[in-house]
Amino acid sequence: MEERHEWEDIGQKIYSLAGKLFPINRSITGNGVRETLALIKEIFPGLMIHEIPSGTEVFDWTVPKEWNVRDAYIECPDGRRIAEFKKNNLHLVGYSVPTDKSMTLEELQAHLHSLPEKPEAIPYVTSYYEERFGFCLAHSERAKLQDGNYRVFIDSELTDGSLAYGEIIIPGESRREIFWSSYICHPSMANNELSGPCLAAYLAKWIAGSPCRFTHRVIFVPETIGAIAYLSRNIEAMKENVTAGFNLSCIGDRGHFSYIASRYGNTLADKAAKSVLRFLDPEYVSYSFLYRGSDERQYNAPGVDLPVCCLTRTKFGRYPEYHTSEDDMNFITPEALGGAFALCREIAESLDANRRYRVKILCEPQMSQRGLYPTMSKRGAAWQTRSMMNFIAYCDGTNDLFDISGIIGEPATRLADYAEVLSDAGLIEEAEESE
Amino acid sequence: MEERHEWEDIGQKIYSLAGKLFPINRSITGNGVRETLALIKEIFPGLMIHEIPSGTEVFDWTVPKEWNVRDAYIECPDGRRIAEFKKNNLHLVGYSVPTDKSMTLEELQAHLHSLPEKPEAIPYVTSYYEERFGFCLAHSERAKLQDGNYRVFIDSELTDGSLAYGEIIIPGESRREIFWSSYICHPSMANNELSGPCLAAYLAKWIAGSPCRFTHRVIFVPETIGAIAYLSRNIEAMKENVTAGFNLSCIGDRGHFSYIASRYGNTLADKAAKSVLRFLDPEYVSYSFLYRGSDERQYNAPGVDLPVCCLTRTKFGRYPEYHTSEDDMNFITPEALGGAFALCREIAESLDANRRYRVKILCEPQMSQRGLYPTMSKRGAAWQTRSMMNFIAYCDGTNDLFDISGIIGEPATRLADYAEVLSDAGLIEEAEESE
Amino acid sequence: MEERHEWEDIGQKIYSLAGKLFPINRSITGNGVRETLALIKEIFPGLMIHEIPSGTEVFDWTVPKEWNVRDAYIECPDGRRIAEFKKNNLHLVGYSVPTDKSMTLEELQAHLHSLPEKPEAIPYVTSYYEERFGFCLAHSERAKLQDGNYRVFIDSELTDGSLAYGEIIIPGESRREIFWSSYICHPSMANNELSGPCLAAYLAKWIAGSPCRFTHRVIFVPETIGAIAYLSRNIEAMKENVTAGFNLSCIGDRGHFSYIASRYGNTLADKAAKSVLRFLDPEYVSYSFLYRGSDERQYNAPGVDLPVCCLTRTKFGRYPEYHTSEDDMNFITPEALGGAFALCREIAESLDANRRYRVKILCEPQMSQRGLYPTMSKRGAAWQTRSMMNFIAYCDGTNDLFDISGIIGEPATRLADYAEVLSDAGLIEEAEESE
Repeated sequence: MEERHEWEDIGQKIYSLAGKLFPINRSITGNGVRETLALIKEIFPGLMIHEIPSGTEVFDWTVPKEWNVRDAYIECPDGRRIAEFKKNNLHLVGYSVPTDKSMTLEELQAHLHSLPEKPEAIPYVTSYYEERFGFCLAHSERAKLQDGNYRVFIDSELTDGSLAYGEIIIPGESRREIFWSSYICHPSMANNELSGPCLAAYLAKWIAGSPCRFTHRVIFVPETIGAIAYLSRNIEAMKENVTAGFNLSCIGDRGHFSYIASRYGNTLADKAAKSVLRFLDPEYVSYSFLYRGSDERQYNAPGVDLPVCCLTRTKFGRYPEYHTSEDDMNFITPEALGGAFALCREIAESLDANRRYRVKILCEPQMSQRGLYPTMSKRGAAWQTRSMMNFIAYCDGTNDLFDISGIIGEPATRLADYAEVLSDAGLIEEAEESE
Repeated sequence: MEERHEWEDIGQKIYSLAGKLFPINRSITGNGVRETLALIKEIFPGLMIHEIPSGTEVFDWTVPKEWNVRDAYIECPDGRRIAEFKKNNLHLVGYSVPTDKSMTLEELQAHLHSLPEKPEAIPYVTSYYEERFGFCLAHSERAKLQDGNYRVFIDSELTDGSLAYGEIIIPGESRREIFWSSYICHPSMANNELSGPCLAAYLAKWIAGSPCRFTHRVIFVPETIGAIAYLSRNIEAMKENVTAGFNLSCIGDRGHFSYIASRYGNTLADKAAKSVLRFLDPEYVSYSFLYRGSDERQYNAPGVDLPVCCLTRTKFGRYPEYHTSEDDMNFITPEALGGAFALCREIAESLDANRRYRVKILCEPQMSQRGLYPTMSKRGAAWQTRSMMNFIAYCDGTNDLFDISGIIGEPATRLADYAEVLSDAGLIEEAEESE
Repeated sequence: MEERHEWEDIGQKIYSLAGKLFPINRSITGNGVRETLALIKEIFPGLMIHEIPSGTEVFDWTVPKEWNVRDAYIECPDGRRIAEFKKNNLHLVGYSVPTDKSMTLEELQAHLHSLPEKPEAIPYVTSYYEERFGFCLAHSERAKLQDGNYRVFIDSELTDGSLAYGEIIIPGESRREIFWSSYICHPSMANNELSGPCLAAYLAKWIAGSPCRFTHRVIFVPETIGAIAYLSRNIEAMKENVTAGFNLSCIGDRGHFSYIASRYGNTLADKAAKSVLRFLDPEYVSYSFLYRGSDERQYNAPGVDLPVCCLTRTKFGRYPEYHTSEDDMNFITPEALGGAFALCREIAESLDANRRYRVKILCEPQMSQRGLYPTMSKRGAAWQTRSMMNFIAYCDGTNDLFDISGIIGEPATRLADYAEVLSDAGLIEEAEESE
């Protein structure tokens, strides 16, 4: 019960952070990213902020110009302003070039985006690599537009600048790393994307407060170009050290958890994620790598080959509010964010506890003599003894905790508890240094 | 038909032996074990009887004091005796300490065991590692007890002595061994346990009369402590030589056969057991190692690592008569015991015949020229030719008889017949020495 | 659409060749085989014709005497001739010895074969390895025979001669070979057998006109004895060079395709066949090697071990017309034969294109910059981009095109197109020489 309260409390904090970040106009570059990082740094002061200049080549890509917006709107023939950037930053197509011109409705239509099937929602549209401009608006509003002369006003800048990203390194006993990735490049949308970085910020805070075997690396990057840029700077160290990694995306809605496998679904990250989800949310949805869409694409690219899977609740593209103004602060909940925190924490704890053990004596040990029979109610005791004997039966030095969890059907964290008790009793030992 | 009669005849003999052993008061030590071994030795004079002194350390355990009982009963306030050991040895809790005292009904109740859900059955209870006493009785009888003064009388001894067990070694051409284990530590119950040791005795008798490639090791030990004690003396030789082993338990009732897998279900013992059961009893029940309960627990412990699975009919704990006075001589049948003998014999024969073969000529051999087309009815002949050609097609030196049995769907013993005919015809040869 | 016309055109040609070959009296030896090969040589002049003398030992077998027939019939008591060889060569049991004798109806019956369950069909019967004679006729005709004196006349010869077969070698860039086998030993039946060799002839013609990486070996042999004889002469070269092989049988009827696996179903031939069939005929039937029946029996024999599977439409023995006069030119169709040609051609093309690729850059490449986004309709373009990105994601040097096809669900030939485009763009390279 207390734990549940703990998750709710954390969920509320994550939700509040998302609320603060929500109004900021993020894109893959620009001051919105910096403001976002500054607010995350308030939660986790150890956050390092890096900048990569426009024009820098990062693998097959080039860091684009920096985009900033002061204002943007469309002035109707009657002088009324619509699609105002200041009212909702989704109104302006991302990377729209500075513009101030008059045009007919027909000319204007070529620059408008709306969703006939969702007439009250503003869609989210960007144009990173082609210089153009455009506005997004509710289809119901668009339908009301009358013939006449429209003024399109966009007070934006597209200039050489830099791409900013944030990085947290929490050293553990070992150089080997657990890696957490989230992205910060979408304007006012809550599930995609604020659920990810806000969860990551509080996860880092918790990790930093717990003694860890593994070093943890937590990053906040613009999606795709940011992940590629980050990899171009860190790939060698990451290939050497990253043991398991998780991309966090769309993880604050009311749906069940989803897991998107790594390229072959066979890494330690996949094993840990599936092992924890099996017990935490038995109805979780499992997707193959063919269903990827976020930065797991880069981490799993051939030659990069990092052991990274993706964790979401309802997967990107699978909920109708995705990439619209309806993915707002009502679409995510503190409870869902708290549950996501619980998932990530249990994955981290499981990985930290994960070892191969070997029984030190031959045949079954005499449990009662050692006071190892649990002292709860008779029926529960019998079950727990059975479960502990099952654990011992597979402590033959070949299985890690996730393997045994899969065989005997107990969560790895419970097996970690058994391992502690049995190690203390001198019955099992670590089979090999896991370092 | 003749074979069926043979099984029935053997089943009758096994049943008779069980009937002789039934009244004896067995426990994990004591004269009941010795009397049991003496009667088995009448069937198989080569049985060797060993004794391990109380107090001997065997891995994590210690051989307990020896327990013997002369008499035990409860005298009711009216002088009537109930729960008389001499009428049914299940009445006395195993390892009950010597006692002669008066007590009220209320005090007595703390020492009584009965089954409300099975009011006519006497339950089976023991207390090996805690010195206490108790009586088991039918719940219907217990319900009739009136207030008053009861005398509890137990004329038992709990003294330093030894743990006895029996061992049969039947040398084969090879030092490699097939291992059969059964246990002899339960008082008057038939399926659990007499079905096992009585079957093992007649199995040993048959093996000794048949020329065998493998050496056979057949043991009769008190469950758990006896198996552990036996392993502590023999583990090195067994790890070197045992090729496949089978623990026999609860194998005389009217149910289908059951198979409990070894730790990973991947040993030659598992392969042989499943291969034979597939054809002998297609509705057999397959249990994972998580459902273990008898001495397969010790043989499969990490570090012991013997290739042993467990064969039963209705598995221990899965029939309501289990561990009660209703597991009596009516609960087992000569037919069921004969069928169990047939199962073990076919497993032994399959293992003995099991080899890898390689065809000596290229392309299909000309069967008719060699007189290898069977001479039975036309339709049967076509089928048998097909089956023999299928066998030849997989005699490529990589498959043993169980592998080919699995691929082509014919019992390994039939394939052994083919192998003999085809070897005699010079068409196949052994791929490698199996020794 | 044009491609469909191409298949229909080819199908028509294959059908016409079958029509020409249909009337010829083939058996495992004799002039019928030579006439058949002569007509195939008209289609493919590079066909080499070989002869192996009667009495030659080929592995476990001996090449039989040569059988030729000039005429055969039964003369009824009323002088009417029935079962005339000249009207349908199925009337004469294959390898019938020369005969000219009178007999009663009762004596005659012992030499007659008919199908009560198919009263209008003439069955197909042979007696290669036992010298005897017989006639096959419609059961309805047999039922009308009256008592009286019958004259059995068979003007055949069974003499030392030779077994003829045809062979085509089409050299490719590599010595490694794709192998195609078909058989020519059945009299007037269309699906079994003319569909196979007629398809093989036109397949060879197409291969010879296309630049190929692999050498192709196409053979036309009498079934069983011919395949064994061929192997006895060529096994060393074939074991060294054959990469994948396909036996073609019963492939001209209206049914779905069928695939009979190689001995373990794990060769490159199996992989290619299943990969192509998955998309070309998703309802194709898959048989294990236990369902073999044609020359795949020899190619997969232990020690021969060639990577050969069998391709059919309705499998031999699975259609009621099989081995009767109803397996005629109406039972096969130009469309079915054209489709079979398409199947074999796609298998050949897939194998030829099959390589392992590795992406040359890290992280996802920028497709638009390189003009690699397809230019068709928007929706199709998105799908094709996704599909191409999926292909790239698995170009990690460990997968061949069939592996990736299996993972991402696109035909290998489409992946070969992607590979060409991406290689030209410098994005991927061959992971290793496949030679």
